[in-house]
Amino acid sequence: MKKTDVLVIGSSAAGLVAATTGKRVHPAKSFTVVTKAPKTLIPCGIPYVFGTVGSTDKDILPAEMMFEKTGVDTIHDEIVKIDRESKTVSLKSGEDIAYDKLVIGTGSTPLKPKWLKGVDLEGVFAVPKDKIYLDEMQKKLENTKKIVTIGAGFIGVEISDELVKAGKEVVLIERLPNILGLAFDKDVSIRATEILENRGVKIETNCTVKELIGTVKVEAVLLEDGRKIETDAVILSLGYTPNSRIAAESGLAVNEQGFLAVDEYMRTEDADVFAVGDCAEKRDFVTRKPSQVMLASTACAEARIAGMNLYKLSAIKTFSGTISMFSTALGDHGFGVAGLTERVAEAENFDYVTGVFDGIDRHPGALPDTHKQYVKLVVGRESGVILGGEVTGGLSVGELINTIGFIIQNRMTLNGILTAQVGTHPLMTASPAGYPLIKAAENAYANIMAANKK
Amino acid sequence: MKKTDVLVIGSSAAGLVAATTGKRVHPAKSFTVVTKAPKTLIPCGIPYVFGTVGSTDKDILPAEMMFEKTGVDTIHDEIVKIDRESKTVSLKSGEDIAYDKLVIGTGSTPLKPKWLKGVDLEGVFAVPKDKIYLDEMQKKLENTKKIVTIGAGFIGVEISDELVKAGKEVVLIERLPNILGLAFDKDVSIRATEILENRGVKIETNCTVKELIGTVKVEAVLLEDGRKIETDAVILSLGYTPNSRIAAESGLAVNEQGFLAVDEYMRTEDADVFAVGDCAEKRDFVTRKPSQVMLASTACAEARIAGMNLYKLSAIKTFSGTISMFSTALGDHGFGVAGLTERVAEAENFDYVTGVFDGIDRHPGALPDTHKQYVKLVVGRESGVILGGEVTGGLSVGELINTIGFIIQNRMTLNGILTAQVGTHPLMTASPAGYPLIKAAENAYANIMAANKK
Repeated sequence: MKKTDVLVIGSSAAGLVAATTGKRVHPAKSFTVVTKAPKTLIPCGIPYVFGTVGSTDKDILPAEMMFEKTGVDTIHDEIVKIDRESKTVSLKSGEDIAYDKLVIGTGSTPLKPKWLKGVDLEGVFAVPKDKIYLDEMQKKLENTKKIVTIGAGFIGVEISDELVKAGKEVVLIERLPNILGLAFDKDVSIRATEILENRGVKIETNCTVKELIGTVKVEAVLLEDGRKIETDAVILSLGYTPNSRIAAESGLAVNEQGFLAVDEYMRTEDADVFAVGDCAEKRDFVTRKPSQVMLASTACAEARIAGMNLYKLSAIKTFSGTISMFSTALGDHGFGVAGLTERVAEAENFDYVTGVFDGIDRHPGALPDTHKQYVKLVVGRESGVILGGEVTGGLSVGELINTIGFIIQNRMTLNGILTAQVGTHPLMTASPAGYPLIKAAENAYANIMAANKK
Repeated sequence: MKKTDVLVIGSSAAGLVAATTGKRVHPAKSFTVVTKAPKTLIPCGIPYVFGTVGSTDKDILPAEMMFEKTGVDTIHDEIVKIDRESKTVSLKSGEDIAYDKLVIGTGSTPLKPKWLKGVDLEGVFAVPKDKIYLDEMQKKLENTKKIVTIGAGFIGVEISDELVKAGKEVVLIERLPNILGLAFDKDVSIRATEILENRGVKIETNCTVKELIGTVKVEAVLLEDGRKIETDAVILSLGYTPNSRIAAESGLAVNEQGFLAVDEYMRTEDADVFAVGDCAEKRDFVTRKPSQVMLASTACAEARIAGMNLYKLSAIKTFSGTISMFSTALGDHGFGVAGLTERVAEAENFDYVTGVFDGIDRHPGALPDTHKQYVKLVVGRESGVILGGEVTGGLSVGELINTIGFIIQNRMTLNGILTAQVGTHPLMTASPAGYPLIKAAENAYANIMAANKK
């Protein structure tokens, strides 16, 4: 029987980073990754395959190359069973492998709800992280003109935008009042809606799908309000469920949402088994409640923690809770969020204020490629601790939200921002006198003063 | 005699932010700004007036508008004397104004060294923050073809790039071995050199100017090595000296470099007199030595501190030392630095390691507008504290260097970065598995381990 010190299941972001980090920290140990296919897709790049990038072949994670470079073995197979007693896994091919430490990075599967009538019709697609499926889907979409996307989370929004770019007529349907409504506050969602509509996506919010109509192929989407939208294809972007079945069958605990329970070292209840990425339990950094965020960036952070703690725990190398850090772009407009939104702060009964500022992301504004930049901070009233932030602007938003992410992770207070130094440059940032992050902090401070006077 | 609670001298970044922050925090006090001209330029935008922006009229700081909006009075005049005994200032117009608190934001003046023969010839310019001078200079440069820029700091590099863009033949002369050699390490300077040369600027480093030749107008630049470069104009970008004379004449202490001595509340030795911006003393955040950095962003940070401490000091609203945070862009290539460079760490005898990583700033790399992204960290060997960072890449560098700036200001360690979460997006950032900031931290960590084994 083959033996390996560390066995990693999966080679997407989670498995890749767990294996390479683990090998870096424990160079004397042998590492083996079991992965279904030789080519793993860059998960966040998938929506762009349908437009800007053009093909899954240009969206391949360089996992194989990185495994080879770092000395991690790979096996192309599928795990069918984990036996924690004998510390072995069984592969579909029939082979067994013995491990000392196991890292589960099995990912997630898109929801394709059985209760939705017509869900199995031809022309109805989900968006799995599966190259073969996506290649076939892309081929089939070539012959379509009208497409309905159901679910306006990030995948739904990004894929709709890309399909319009590729010449399709797209209707995006969302049951919530706003697109991206779980990630952003309404003020930001409204800005995204405006831009997405200007780019040609027809958006229907507050809108529930009753059934998908068709005989063999899908022909229309029937809404609860009785309207019927004719279409050549339907793309479901309704979220993902964690792939935790095989691990659960080995007796490992899963939480209510189906994620594998882990501690802050990313260990399951079995000290030799770690879980990372979409299949692993998440706990919100601020609310400490279970979170269902699935992001490659979160997966990588968890995987680094697991990789560093495989053999001996380090009390300082812990995962301190999930900071939902989302960002997306529509053309040259960027959107980002980190930590608590106002909506969640309100719902969870936090004692908070907000601070907002509308500025621009170049200076002077006469410079080309100047965008409006909007920053919103959610701040603990009593403590001044920054609980969350949202940003819209140009593409620099992608890194600006990371500044806010580090502010949250350092549990910085408003005072820290008000006394902070920032670097600025005409062609790359807002002006130092009108830097929206600092101005939003000033605004939040004024709101705390006002709240305290009441 | 006119009386004001707070008198601010200057309306550039420092004066503007000191006055508006002060008024925000002390709304019941009266604020008056004395400024020479009604239109103050956005200082960092000045190089771009000569190309991309096109005119100083499009590079105006909205100071007047902000003063009006916040209820700050303005007087267009010049301070000729400060009398700290009677707490009054005298204006050029003859008027005196009594103050309770005084904020000095008098800025700096470009060096035009008297020892350089030919410095007073026609066609020899400096780059002051003076609209009238710059308008005339721009007009005169219109009729030139060949321009020599002397001094390859940020102003020299940016103005050279812009003048090439405007169709001029530009030679940039620098006495140090590399352009931007005081701000960046050699590895970054070399990248900037390559790009600037590709954009058409002829660069001469390790090159000292002996004299400027001409009878009435400048005709050539004579170098120490005997070469003569014919030219129609010369632009001196040799740095700036603090405008501290009038304050010094009032008996306030200036340090060896000519800056007004201040404490961490930005107070001079007179408890009622503050100094901020280019004229105020700076102390490096890491080395604690005097620093000569002059940046609008630093000025704004100092001005916020002064504004918040005008009437009562707050022990937590202090200026914790200057983090030299520079960034610049050449076309769509960005460069940034925060904190200590390796060169300074070495010169100051710090026990340090570096960590570097070469990645890309989009994922997958097949996406348009993908740039190589290089991150270098300078890290305390024993403590793991991040002392400095340098970045090259696309324009997102402008905000990425602020993430590093906040890392330094929070005195974060390598461990903090290795366990951190970042947000990523295909169209805006590097991939989460290959995020250069984190990979550079991993590399630095490996270098610490290797150093400790020795």
